[in-house]
Amino acid sequence: MVDPPDVGLSVRYQLACAEGEDAFAKARDIAVEQTVELPEGCYSKQIEELVVGKVKVLEQSGEGRWEAVISYGPDVIGDELPQLLNVLFGNVSLKAGVRLTGIELSPALLSTFPGPLFGIDGIRELCAVRERRALLCTALKPVGLSPEQLAERAFRFALGGIDIIKDDHGLANQRPAPFKERVARCQEAVTKANARTGAGSLYFPNATGTISGLEERLAFVRAAGCKGVLLSPLLMGFDTVRYAAALSGLAVLAHPALSGSFFHDDTGIAPDVLLGQIFRLIGSDGVIYPNAGGRFSFTEIVCDAINAKLRERLDPLRRSFPVPAGGIDVDKIALLVERYGVDTIFLVGSSLYAQSDLEKASRNLLDTVRNLI
Amino acid sequence: MVDPPDVGLSVRYQLACAEGEDAFAKARDIAVEQTVELPEGCYSKQIEELVVGKVKVLEQSGEGRWEAVISYGPDVIGDELPQLLNVLFGNVSLKAGVRLTGIELSPALLSTFPGPLFGIDGIRELCAVRERRALLCTALKPVGLSPEQLAERAFRFALGGIDIIKDDHGLANQRPAPFKERVARCQEAVTKANARTGAGSLYFPNATGTISGLEERLAFVRAAGCKGVLLSPLLMGFDTVRYAAALSGLAVLAHPALSGSFFHDDTGIAPDVLLGQIFRLIGSDGVIYPNAGGRFSFTEIVCDAINAKLRERLDPLRRSFPVPAGGIDVDKIALLVERYGVDTIFLVGSSLYAQSDLEKASRNLLDTVRNLI
Repeated sequence: MVDPPDVGLSVRYQLACAEGEDAFAKARDIAVEQTVELPEGCYSKQIEELVVGKVKVLEQSGEGRWEAVISYGPDVIGDELPQLLNVLFGNVSLKAGVRLTGIELSPALLSTFPGPLFGIDGIRELCAVRERRALLCTALKPVGLSPEQLAERAFRFALGGIDIIKDDHGLANQRPAPFKERVARCQEAVTKANARTGAGSLYFPNATGTISGLEERLAFVRAAGCKGVLLSPLLMGFDTVRYAAALSGLAVLAHPALSGSFFHDDTGIAPDVLLGQIFRLIGSDGVIYPNAGGRFSFTEIVCDAINAKLRERLDPLRRSFPVPAGGIDVDKIALLVERYGVDTIFLVGSSLYAQSDLEKASRNLLDTVRNLI
Repeated sequence: MVDPPDVGLSVRYQLACAEGEDAFAKARDIAVEQTVELPEGCYSKQIEELVVGKVKVLEQSGEGRWEAVISYGPDVIGDELPQLLNVLFGNVSLKAGVRLTGIELSPALLSTFPGPLFGIDGIRELCAVRERRALLCTALKPVGLSPEQLAERAFRFALGGIDIIKDDHGLANQRPAPFKERVARCQEAVTKANARTGAGSLYFPNATGTISGLEERLAFVRAAGCKGVLLSPLLMGFDTVRYAAALSGLAVLAHPALSGSFFHDDTGIAPDVLLGQIFRLIGSDGVIYPNAGGRFSFTEIVCDAINAKLRERLDPLRRSFPVPAGGIDVDKIALLVERYGVDTIFLVGSSLYAQSDLEKASRNLLDTVRNLI
C-alpha cells in the first residue's frame, strides 16, 4: 500500500483484465465512474482536478492481474460514511474484474469517524479481566427457546466464567422470546451469576432490528444494565451501527451476517477490508468472523489479515478485538490462542452445547485459557 | 418456484456441489445454519419442528448443480426486515456454493411489508403523465458543481420535459454543493420550468446519508416541495429505506450502488431477487439497475428477470418501475421501449450531456418516446 494521503483517501483495487483489456484504461475508468460518471469532455478542467480520482499506482501482479491505487479528494468524499462507501465501491461493484483490496484514509478523514468506543483495552475493563489472557464468548441459542430457557443458559455460562454471553444473531423479536423480555431475563441471570462468582461476565443482546425501534431498543438495553450489544452491519446498515454506538454509548460486537456475498477472488471487497477496516471504522469493538477450518470458507491467511487490520495502530481510532467463530472447538483452544494471541475473543458455541453441563464446560474452557498465560 | 407457503417463507437456493459433496446434506445444512445453528442432538424435537428450516424440494439442475427450496416458519422469521434478510442469506452467505435465487412470502408475511407507496401508477400520477408512454429520467451531475450550476441543468432538463430529474447518487453533502442549498435551488428551478411548460417534471434529490440526519433531510426535502428522493439501500441499509419511505411519504427511487458485490454465478444473491424482490419489498417505487449493453455487466436475461419481479402481481404490494440505466443511448431509445415496454423509466445521462443544448436534447428524447405510443 502507499502511505496515507495528506487529504482524502487512497484506495487499492485489484484488477482482473480480460484478454486485450488495457489496465490503465480500466483504472482510469474506475477513477471516473466513482466520481463524475461522465465521459471526458462533459466536465471542466477544474472538476477534473478537484473531483475525478487520480490513478497513483498501477502495477502488474500476475497474468492479467493488476494492482491500482486511486486517490479521491475531499470534495467528492465529504464527511459521511454512506458517501465514503459509495466512493470506495458504489458503482464499480457492478463492473467485472474490480475488487476493493485496501483503504488508507488521511488523518483528517480518519478523525471524522469515531471508531470503537471501547476497543480492546476498554472491553477488557468492561469484563473486569486483568490477566493478559484471551477472552471467551458464547452465544445463547437456539431461536425457539423461551426467555427463561435462554436466561438459564446465560446463567450457566456466566457461572462457568464466559466473559461475553451474546444472543445468537438470529434472536430478533420473534414470538418465542420477544426482545424486551429476553433481554431483561438474560441480564438478570448474568447479574445473579456474577454476584455468586465475583466475576464480570457480560450479556450482549442482539439489538439488530428495525430502524424505527432502534432508539427504544438501545435505551431498554442500557436500562436493563447491559454494557454492549450485538449488531449485524449488513442487515441494518453500516451507518446505523455507527449511529447506534454513538447514541447509546454501548460496546458493539459486530456480526458478519450477509457479508459473505462480498468475498470473491476477482470482485467484491476483500474480507480484511470489509471486516477489518470498515467494521472497525463504523465502531465495532469486536468483529466476529468465520474462523479457518470451521464450517465456513475463510483461509488462515484471510483470518490473519482481518486480525492485523483490527489491531493495527490507526490513531486516533481504538483497536478492535478479532472474534473468530464458527466451529471453534474447545479442544483446539490452546492452539488457537497460540496462533491468534491473547488479544482475541474466541466465540465458542457448538462445542460447549455438545457437553451437557454448560457451567462445567465453560469453566474447563476458561481454565484452559487461563493456564496459557 | 413453488407456490407461496401458507405461513412463513419459501426460499430457493442454487447449490454448487464440489465433487463428492452430498446435495441433500448441503441443503439440510442451510436449513440448520439459517435457524438453530447447532449440531443435531443439541435441540429438542419441538425446536426441530417449529424452527429448523424444511427442505421442500431438491432437484438436480446440471453437473454438480442443484436447486433446493427450503421453507422457514414464522417463529424464526418474526416480522422485521433485518431478521428476514438474515434468514434468507445471513450465515450461508459465508458458505461456498450457495446462491439465493428466489423468495416466496406467505400472504401474512407479505402484508407486514408496505412495499412501494406509489408504485407504477402512483409515479405516473405524480409526474402528471396521462399518456401510456415510457417515462424519462436523468441525473444531475457531476459532483463538484455548485448548487446554482446543478439547478441550471435541472432547469434545462425540466424545460425539455424530462419526467424525473434526480441527483447523481454521488451528490451527498459535500462542500461544493451542500445538501440543503442544492435541494432548494434545484427544486426551485424545476418548479420554474414547470410553470413555463405546464408539465409536471419532478426533482428527486439524493437523500442517502447518515442516519443521524435522516429525519431532518427528509423533512427538508418535503418542505422544499419535492415529491420523491433517491436512496441507495446498500449504502444506508435496507430497513432504513423502508423507514424513510414510511416516515416521509415520499416516493423512492432506489440506486444499486454497492449491490454488484452480491452478483456471482455460484454464490451471492441473484440480481432479480435483490433488485427485483427485496428492493420492491422495502418500498422502492422505481429501481435503477445497470442495463445490458451499457458500461456494466448485466445480460438481457438478467434485466428481463428484474423487470418481471418488479412488475409481477404480488398483492397487496404495488408494482415498481424498472429504471434501466448506465449507457442508455438516446439513439437506442425506440428499440429499448419496444423491448422493455412503456412501464419503464429510462435513465439517460451521458448521451444527453454529450449534447451541448440540454433542453433540446431532452425535448428530442421526449418526442421520440411520445411517438412510440
